[in-house]
Amino acid sequence: MAQFADRLIQQILAKNSRCIVGLDPRVDQMPAFVRGSGTYAAITAFHELVMDAVADLVPAVKPQLAFFEQYGVAGMQAFENTVLAAKQRGLLVIADGKRNDISSTAEAYANAYLGEGAFDCDALTVTPYLGRDSLAPFVEACKKHGKGLFVVLKTSNPGSKDFQDQRVETTGRPLYESIASMLHELGEDLVGESGYSSIGAVIGATFPEEGRRLRELMPRAQILVPGYGAQGGSAKAAAECFNDDGLGAVVSSSRGTTYAFGDPAISRDAFVRGVREKTLRMIEDVNAAVSLVNPQTPLRSPALPRA
Amino acid sequence: MAQFADRLIQQILAKNSRCIVGLDPRVDQMPAFVRGSGTYAAITAFHELVMDAVADLVPAVKPQLAFFEQYGVAGMQAFENTVLAAKQRGLLVIADGKRNDISSTAEAYANAYLGEGAFDCDALTVTPYLGRDSLAPFVEACKKHGKGLFVVLKTSNPGSKDFQDQRVETTGRPLYESIASMLHELGEDLVGESGYSSIGAVIGATFPEEGRRLRELMPRAQILVPGYGAQGGSAKAAAECFNDDGLGAVVSSSRGTTYAFGDPAISRDAFVRGVREKTLRMIEDVNAAVSLVNPQTPLRSPALPRA
Repeated sequence: MAQFADRLIQQILAKNSRCIVGLDPRVDQMPAFVRGSGTYAAITAFHELVMDAVADLVPAVKPQLAFFEQYGVAGMQAFENTVLAAKQRGLLVIADGKRNDISSTAEAYANAYLGEGAFDCDALTVTPYLGRDSLAPFVEACKKHGKGLFVVLKTSNPGSKDFQDQRVETTGRPLYESIASMLHELGEDLVGESGYSSIGAVIGATFPEEGRRLRELMPRAQILVPGYGAQGGSAKAAAECFNDDGLGAVVSSSRGTTYAFGDPAISRDAFVRGVREKTLRMIEDVNAAVSLVNPQTPLRSPALPRA
Repeated sequence: MAQFADRLIQQILAKNSRCIVGLDPRVDQMPAFVRGSGTYAAITAFHELVMDAVADLVPAVKPQLAFFEQYGVAGMQAFENTVLAAKQRGLLVIADGKRNDISSTAEAYANAYLGEGAFDCDALTVTPYLGRDSLAPFVEACKKHGKGLFVVLKTSNPGSKDFQDQRVETTGRPLYESIASMLHELGEDLVGESGYSSIGAVIGATFPEEGRRLRELMPRAQILVPGYGAQGGSAKAAAECFNDDGLGAVVSSSRGTTYAFGDPAISRDAFVRGVREKTLRMIEDVNAAVSLVNPQTPLRSPALPRA
């Protein structure tokens, strides 16, 4: 199988879209027409509808595991179905689980999400605090199965300053920069034909300066930028995470795209139309910002795939 | 419901045992007599047998989520059953998931493992990298439902030096000490009648000096010490994580207790006897080390509950 990095870039170019849709099941906030037939059925129907609406507009979806886990076994069944349904629609799946552990336990997580059994996702978000060797089993799985990683570097919340921003004595620079340098090295082995690595990073859309600096430290990484919209992140800030070629990042929106409809009695058609419009507007917004920050980018902008 | 800290201490005193058993399903390494009837049935039978063997010897079990997740939905069904089966046997459940995220996503994880629906565990391991506000939803769940947290501070792997040990400019001390101080503050609100807090920490059994220092920084925290046996941690090193009252920590063994039988053709009786003997030996080893390091401890030592 082709490397994850290349598969993602191919999708981005084909759809001229740097946006992905987050899938965070919140059953009590779903439209009435999908509810009432149980948790599993509601999540499944909701996600299939969202993905039908955006399959030609975005390269990937990002199911957030926490929201599935909160529904117990039924939630994990719905996760399994969501992954399969995404693949059927030609969408890559970035499982957002912020997992990690050491040695054989990290290996078990890699088996769970980046192997070929259990949940066969395309990429997984992981945390770096346990050190370089904790990432090794994930990197191995990426090599073996053409999968990808996004390592959490700098999050969009206020508390991201507590430890991520601590300056370390040896370098005089924030901790997240030490981690970025390590990731850059680690990613060298997984650079695909696109010139991008399958070892990426997560950087919140609320810190443009940090984004720019990290972009320099890890030029080949693909950056997952959550926090657009609901968490206060802007396309302008996210644009700093892109390279001059207009590539190297994907911007994610969850609530702002899928739970923005307001009225629980919304019809199926109006819901699909709404999700599609929100997504198109976001693609346009992000592409415009990327063009502005990187004037040489070869983007058609504003890029509006036909509805 | 009583605070988690008090429930744990009560169990520790009643059983005179500071040891817990890790439950890491590895189906291909289970005895032949539990295999052959499918993943769910094998994990379930294996864990029920292990818990029958140790229910009077240990205060808690520590299922490692990664090993369940690697079996997909069947694995999560087995996790659900394992949690219920532990409760039926009077064992506390510390879900080892090293979860975390920000705002409503952290809340979803708290719902998943520390709420009353989904998986109703007694405590959860979480990671600190996302900062203090990322822990808030977990702390709230602990307050509301009498649950507990163990925040990863210092792990037993070589890579724990990469970021955890980085000295930060503001204090000149390792990062994990900044986190420990923050946890000490955070835990003040959740100190129970026992004098211990329901906000604890994870410290690997391979770093005795760090354990001693962290014990001082967070005197009221209960410390989860994994890595006894298989990961090279010793009772002597683990003992540094205890207070002079002989309390304040639990030492965990997984593989060394449950997968140490060697012969896959082992009989049910021999397996149960083996798990029980390993556990008794570990309890004795840890109690002796705790008495040695803290000579004033009120332990009966060596403590051997009757088989």
